[in-house]
Amino acid sequence: MFYRKKHLLAIEGLEPPAISQLLDLAESYVLLNRSGKTQRDLLRGRTLINLFFEDSTRTRTSFELAGKRLGADVINMSVSTSSVNKGETLIDTAATLNAMHCDLLVVRHDQSGAPNLLAQIVDAAVINAGDGTHEHPTQALLDALTIKRRKGRIAGLTVAICGDVTHSRVARSNIHLLTTMGCQVRVVGPPTLIPAGVADLGVSVFHDMAAGLDGVDVVMTLRLQRERMARGLVPSAREYFRFYGLDHEKLARARPDAIVMHPGPMNRGVEIDSAVADDPAHSVIKEQVEMGVAVRMAVLDILSRGQGRNEP
Amino acid sequence: MFYRKKHLLAIEGLEPPAISQLLDLAESYVLLNRSGKTQRDLLRGRTLINLFFEDSTRTRTSFELAGKRLGADVINMSVSTSSVNKGETLIDTAATLNAMHCDLLVVRHDQSGAPNLLAQIVDAAVINAGDGTHEHPTQALLDALTIKRRKGRIAGLTVAICGDVTHSRVARSNIHLLTTMGCQVRVVGPPTLIPAGVADLGVSVFHDMAAGLDGVDVVMTLRLQRERMARGLVPSAREYFRFYGLDHEKLARARPDAIVMHPGPMNRGVEIDSAVADDPAHSVIKEQVEMGVAVRMAVLDILSRGQGRNEP
Amino acid sequence: MFYRKKHLLAIEGLEPPAISQLLDLAESYVLLNRSGKTQRDLLRGRTLINLFFEDSTRTRTSFELAGKRLGADVINMSVSTSSVNKGETLIDTAATLNAMHCDLLVVRHDQSGAPNLLAQIVDAAVINAGDGTHEHPTQALLDALTIKRRKGRIAGLTVAICGDVTHSRVARSNIHLLTTMGCQVRVVGPPTLIPAGVADLGVSVFHDMAAGLDGVDVVMTLRLQRERMARGLVPSAREYFRFYGLDHEKLARARPDAIVMHPGPMNRGVEIDSAVADDPAHSVIKEQVEMGVAVRMAVLDILSRGQGRNEP
Repeated sequence: MFYRKKHLLAIEGLEPPAISQLLDLAESYVLLNRSGKTQRDLLRGRTLINLFFEDSTRTRTSFELAGKRLGADVINMSVSTSSVNKGETLIDTAATLNAMHCDLLVVRHDQSGAPNLLAQIVDAAVINAGDGTHEHPTQALLDALTIKRRKGRIAGLTVAICGDVTHSRVARSNIHLLTTMGCQVRVVGPPTLIPAGVADLGVSVFHDMAAGLDGVDVVMTLRLQRERMARGLVPSAREYFRFYGLDHEKLARARPDAIVMHPGPMNRGVEIDSAVADDPAHSVIKEQVEMGVAVRMAVLDILSRGQGRNEP
Repeated sequence: MFYRKKHLLAIEGLEPPAISQLLDLAESYVLLNRSGKTQRDLLRGRTLINLFFEDSTRTRTSFELAGKRLGADVINMSVSTSSVNKGETLIDTAATLNAMHCDLLVVRHDQSGAPNLLAQIVDAAVINAGDGTHEHPTQALLDALTIKRRKGRIAGLTVAICGDVTHSRVARSNIHLLTTMGCQVRVVGPPTLIPAGVADLGVSVFHDMAAGLDGVDVVMTLRLQRERMARGLVPSAREYFRFYGLDHEKLARARPDAIVMHPGPMNRGVEIDSAVADDPAHSVIKEQVEMGVAVRMAVLDILSRGQGRNEP
Repeated sequence: MFYRKKHLLAIEGLEPPAISQLLDLAESYVLLNRSGKTQRDLLRGRTLINLFFEDSTRTRTSFELAGKRLGADVINMSVSTSSVNKGETLIDTAATLNAMHCDLLVVRHDQSGAPNLLAQIVDAAVINAGDGTHEHPTQALLDALTIKRRKGRIAGLTVAICGDVTHSRVARSNIHLLTTMGCQVRVVGPPTLIPAGVADLGVSVFHDMAAGLDGVDVVMTLRLQRERMARGLVPSAREYFRFYGLDHEKLARARPDAIVMHPGPMNRGVEIDSAVADDPAHSVIKEQVEMGVAVRMAVLDILSRGQGRNEP
C-alpha cells in the first residue's frame, strides 16, 4: 500500500491500490474542507517547506493551505530570494533544509529529476510538485479524483489528452495514472507537440482533434507552453486555436456527457475557448482546483504516518 | 447595520451607523492589541488570502497581523510570483481562490474596480485594500478612528485633505467617510492635482495652503504619487514643498490643537516637513498605523459573522 | 546575565556568562528539535517580524522556524516588496512596525549599524541577523555551540578563521566570541582580504595557509564575497583556491581531529574543496545549520523573558 512509501516523486510505478487509497482519503478531505473544519492535530509540530525553484501561485498556495489545515508549520522558499543565487548547489540546499528538521519537503524545479535527487539526500518526505517535463503527480491525482467524482469510476473511461504533450509533465503523470487505472488514453495534438515514443506508454496518438475526441468521456486540455519552445517553433495562437483549441464545435465529437478539464492557468482563446471553459454543462476546471487541496492533504497525511522525526 | 454586508469594497454607500459600529469594535481591538492578548478562536479554521497586485508592505503586514491575531490561516499572494504572469485572467484567479475555500479575500489592485469584480465571482468576503484611484476603505476607517480618539468626536470637525488628491484613493475614501459623518471637508492642492468635479462630493476646494488650513482641526497630508503622473507633468519636489509641503509655518494657520496625519509612506521634504511629521504636539502618524491593525481586525471580525463556509 | 539585555546587536561587549547562558539554553533546544516536539506556549501571542533588506533564505528560514516552533506569529518582510522602494526611511519603517506592536524584530541590512539604529527607536527586542561588514551574532553563537558539542569545550582551543575576513561580519562576530571565551584565534588570508588593525582584536595574522593551520583545532572557512569587492580587485577562483582554498593537503597541517566549518552558502572549489566539505571525519557544516535553529530559539526565548508587551 502507498503508506509504506516514503516519498511521492512520480505516478509511474504506483500500483492501483496505492492510487485508490490516496483518492479515497482525499475524498474525505473534500468533505472536511467543505464543512469548514480542520484537523490541526494531524501535523502539529511538523515542518512543511515549499521549495519552489519555479513560480507557481496556484500549486504553492494549494500545498500551503493543505499543510496549514492539517496544523503543520509551513515555510515558503522561492528561488528568487534564495541563496541558490549565490552559487549554492541543490545538494547544499537540501542538506541545509535537512539539518533544520524538515518533515515534508514540497519541491518544484525546472529540471526533471531534481526531486528524486533531493529524496536521496534528505530525511524528509519529498513531494514532487512538478519537475521539468517529467511528472506532476499531485496534479494527476486531483484530476483522477475529479473524474471519479463526476463519472463514478475511472476504469473503462476513454480520455483524450489534448495539445502540448511534449512539454507537459501533467500529461505524463496523467498517462501513467489513467492507463494504470484502466482507462483508454489518447493523446491528441500536432506532430511537433507529441513526443516520439509516447505510444510505448500504451496510448493512441491522434493528430486530428475531430478523430481524437470522437466518443471520449473526458477531454483534458493542456496549456500551450510557449515559454519552453525554441524560438521559431512557437505556433501562432490563432493557428493553434483553429486546429487544436477546444471549442464547442470540436467538443461535439465527444460523448454528450463528456467533461472538460484544464490544469490551469488557462490561455483562453489558445488551447481552450472561453465558452467551453465556462460551460457548467462540461467544464470541471474549478472542481479540479478544489480537489487539489484535498489531494494534497491526503498525500501529506499518508506520507507523515509512521514518520519518525528525523535526526541528522 | 454593517454586519449584514458581505464585503467592504468602498466607503461610499456606507451609512453612519455602519461606520460607527466598525469604529466602536475597532476600539476594543486597540485595547486587546495593547494588552498583548489575542482572540484566536474568532477566525480559527478560516482562510484569509492577501491578494496583492501592487506592492505594499505596510498594508499587507497590517492585514496579515490582523488575521493571525484572530486565528485565521493567512496566505500571501503577490503578483510578482503569480500565475497572472502566465496570462491568467483576474477572473480565473478569483475562481481558483474560490475553489480553495477562501473565506476572506483582501485585494489590492492597480485597476479601479478590480475588487468589485472579484466580489461578484467569489463566495469569500472581499475587502478592498486599495484599488487604482478609486477607494481604500480601511485607510479611511483607521483615519476616522485616529481622529475620534484624539478629538473625542468626528462630527463638526473641519478637515483639510492636502496635496495630490487626483491620484489618491485615500483622499476619495476619506471624503466619503468624513462628509458622511458630519465633517466639513476641504481639499487643498494645485489645480493640476485636484480632480474636476470633486466639489460635487460636498467639499470645498482651495488652491492656497494658507487659506485652506485656516482654522482646521485636522490636516491630512497625501503622498505625492509621482509614479502615477505623466512624464513632463511631475512637479519638482522643491517647488512642490515650497507651496504645498506642510511645515510649521503653514501649519500655524490651523487650530493650535490641530492634528497632522499622513497615510504613509511619507516623502519627507516633499509633502511634509520632517519637523512636522515628528512633532509629538501635532503628528498622529504612528497612531494611524496602530489603528490600522485594530480597524482591520474589526472588519475581518464583522465580515466573518454569520458567514457560512463556502461550498463551490 | 544576558537576560537583562533587551537586544542582541553584537557579540562585542557580551561577557562570558551571558554567552554560556545562551549556549546552554540552545543545547536544550537541540534536544527539543530532535525529539520533534515544540514549545508553542512560550511565544504565543507574540509577533516576530523578519525584516530583511538583503536576501538570505537560510537565515530567514532559520529564524522563521525558530519563531514558529515557539508559537510566535511570524511575519516576513523583504525589501524587494517593501515600501522602502517608495522612498520611506529606515526610521519610518521602524516606527510603522513599532506601532503594529512587534515584539521581536529580526533585522538583516547591508549597512553596518542599521540594527543599532532600529533598536533606539522601537520597543521590540531587536536581533541583528547580519549588518553590512559589522556583525552576525547568531552565526557566531551557533558556531560556538557546534564547537562546544564537538570538542567538549571552547576555552583553550586554537581556531583559524580563513579567507575573506575583510568583508565578513561572520569573522568579526566569531573573533569577538572566541577571544572572549578563551580561544587562541588566528586569521589567515591574503593581505588584501585581512583588514588593517585586526591584530588589535587579539588575533594572530597569517598570510600562508600552511603556517596558519598548523596545529589548529578548528578551521573556519569563509565565503569569498566577490559581490562586495571593487571590480578589478576580485581574485580569480582558480588562483584563490590554489593558495587559500581548503583541501585535504592544507587541512593536513591542522590537528588530526580538527573540525572544518563554513557559514554557508559555500562556493565549492573556491574557498573549500568539495572533498573536505563533504568529509564526515572533519566537516561539521550540516551541524552548524542545525545549531542555528536551536541558537535562535534560545535568543528569542531569553529576549522575550520579562518583556512586557509594548505600548506605543
